[in-house]
Amino acid sequence: MKTIVELVSELKSRNLVLPIWIEGSRLKILNQLKLPFKEEIYSLERVEDLAQAIKQMNIRGSGAIGICGAYGVYLAALLEKGNINKIVEAGTILKSTRPTAVNLMKTVDEMLLALKGSEADVLDRLEAKAVEILERQLQFEYELGANGAALIEDGDTVMTHCHSGALGGSGYGGRALSVIRAAHELGKNIHVLTCETRPYLQGARITAYELRKFGIPHTLITDSMSGFFMSQGKIKKVVVGSDRVAGNGDLANKIGTYMHALAAKANNVPFYTATSSHTIDFSIKKGTDIEVEMREGREVTSLNGQPIAPEGTQALYPSFDITPNELITGIITEKGVIPTPFSQNLLRVGKL
Amino acid sequence: MKTIVELVSELKSRNLVLPIWIEGSRLKILNQLKLPFKEEIYSLERVEDLAQAIKQMNIRGSGAIGICGAYGVYLAALLEKGNINKIVEAGTILKSTRPTAVNLMKTVDEMLLALKGSEADVLDRLEAKAVEILERQLQFEYELGANGAALIEDGDTVMTHCHSGALGGSGYGGRALSVIRAAHELGKNIHVLTCETRPYLQGARITAYELRKFGIPHTLITDSMSGFFMSQGKIKKVVVGSDRVAGNGDLANKIGTYMHALAAKANNVPFYTATSSHTIDFSIKKGTDIEVEMREGREVTSLNGQPIAPEGTQALYPSFDITPNELITGIITEKGVIPTPFSQNLLRVGKL
Repeated sequence: MKTIVELVSELKSRNLVLPIWIEGSRLKILNQLKLPFKEEIYSLERVEDLAQAIKQMNIRGSGAIGICGAYGVYLAALLEKGNINKIVEAGTILKSTRPTAVNLMKTVDEMLLALKGSEADVLDRLEAKAVEILERQLQFEYELGANGAALIEDGDTVMTHCHSGALGGSGYGGRALSVIRAAHELGKNIHVLTCETRPYLQGARITAYELRKFGIPHTLITDSMSGFFMSQGKIKKVVVGSDRVAGNGDLANKIGTYMHALAAKANNVPFYTATSSHTIDFSIKKGTDIEVEMREGREVTSLNGQPIAPEGTQALYPSFDITPNELITGIITEKGVIPTPFSQNLLRVGKL
Repeated sequence: MKTIVELVSELKSRNLVLPIWIEGSRLKILNQLKLPFKEEIYSLERVEDLAQAIKQMNIRGSGAIGICGAYGVYLAALLEKGNINKIVEAGTILKSTRPTAVNLMKTVDEMLLALKGSEADVLDRLEAKAVEILERQLQFEYELGANGAALIEDGDTVMTHCHSGALGGSGYGGRALSVIRAAHELGKNIHVLTCETRPYLQGARITAYELRKFGIPHTLITDSMSGFFMSQGKIKKVVVGSDRVAGNGDLANKIGTYMHALAAKANNVPFYTATSSHTIDFSIKKGTDIEVEMREGREVTSLNGQPIAPEGTQALYPSFDITPNELITGIITEKGVIPTPFSQNLLRVGKL
């Protein structure tokens, strides 16, 4: 059996950008809120600290949060020396940080299920399960990346929006960036346009940070420029992540995605989302059934605490928008690229 | 004859936001670079200072720059006590600040033409001409506003992009904001969504500043949000300004305009540009004939001097984009609202 120490050492030897790892009985996380200006590493001693870091968005992204579930329960087991009640309690604390994060629920439950069995080797079982969860996430990203990379041609300029990358997953490439990274690693000569993604600037801050780490040529643009570059024939593919995919292929993703998709359609640029087959939610029939969360307007009126509008200006901040399926060329998953018509083809994914 | 002192006093008594005015033998300008955080008024003693202010964008917008031509030549006449050579030289200095600004060329030439005649009353003639130019600009904005306001219905939410307002004109409303202001003054209960307009944030800084001054209810959004609000039925009309209009109605305007127009078309939201009939350039057959100016990428990688991306990140900044005529519902001018098909109807405008 591979130990966590061996796995972490292996991951660190590759060119990964790890969102979280373990050293002794401490969890280490790269504080994503300070990127790209400071690579601040938090050392967490208790499960409560990890829960706090998830709540404060120091670490984020469904893959990475799922890994937190694995590491978090394992940390509790180490600290509590296998005390089952305390470990279960730690799982409850972790789950409560993001009650809607399906992946986190799943990994915590898997870890808790591994408690069953002889008390003597409970730590071994939890460690093996945590290693399995980490390797599964990494494998998911490799497969997703390989499937998507086949769509990218040598010489392509690929546009992405927001951050759907390594720090939201295992450290390889997460979702959209796994596709881009895999294409780059196949030797395809690609260039990436990363949209800054107002108001929170995930594209300017985190996607640009990762592309730099991975040595992938890239250029920053504002969200309002994608249409212009598409009209000039400068963008050959669009690959974005996804918050949710409805049963008919409608996509919920970071605010601005819909306008990029409209521009792509008008200029015949293929538009893809990279996602996990588990993100496809058949309980949601169509995108308009999804209620869009409205966040604090002050995130729009200021930037890093600096005001950008007259004092007292009101603002609106829908955190994501809905891209209707007719604007989407294909849905890239770890099981393959799903073509239109999505209502039929998505149903087959579960059977692959 | 109305004197400049009388005119300025009259303008100040209305609810205008003056970009420039005269006090004694000093020109006063509101420094637009410091808005909305500071209402800094520059006092200019020489024509060279005004030329510098135009070059540094302390004052901008075709209407306002045209007024600078009038005030600037008049200031030179005051300072040089009617010395014709010096006045002509001042005109040359002013014109050199923006060789492509048609309106500036025109107003300076009009002022210089007024030099002709007896030397005794040259100052009177220049003053009368300056007053005429100012009143003409104001009248243009009233007429443009009235024509556009007829398109706005009671209860409408109107979206605009960038700044096409009072400080770019006489102080009433410039172009797009003349339409919005006139609708508001007619008692129509309207709400304005102003797009922040990255990278330079003219919408967040200056449009929001003017809307506040004029007491028009408004909300700030990022450029990436217009499509979402249109898909929700929350935007009833779009009114933007224009840098140039080609003979076929294609529109060159601030980067981002094209994507708003695509979103408007997809959601059946009427999309208008407010412009001067003189902005329509029949020497340009179609929008793609216009070369888009690329500006410094560092305006994208930083905001108010604060970096927003990893050090060394490259960026692109096309200053405007082209909106094809098929996305435009109508072109609002001081001579009326021009409907489609533009290629035919624009030709008639000159004859109105």
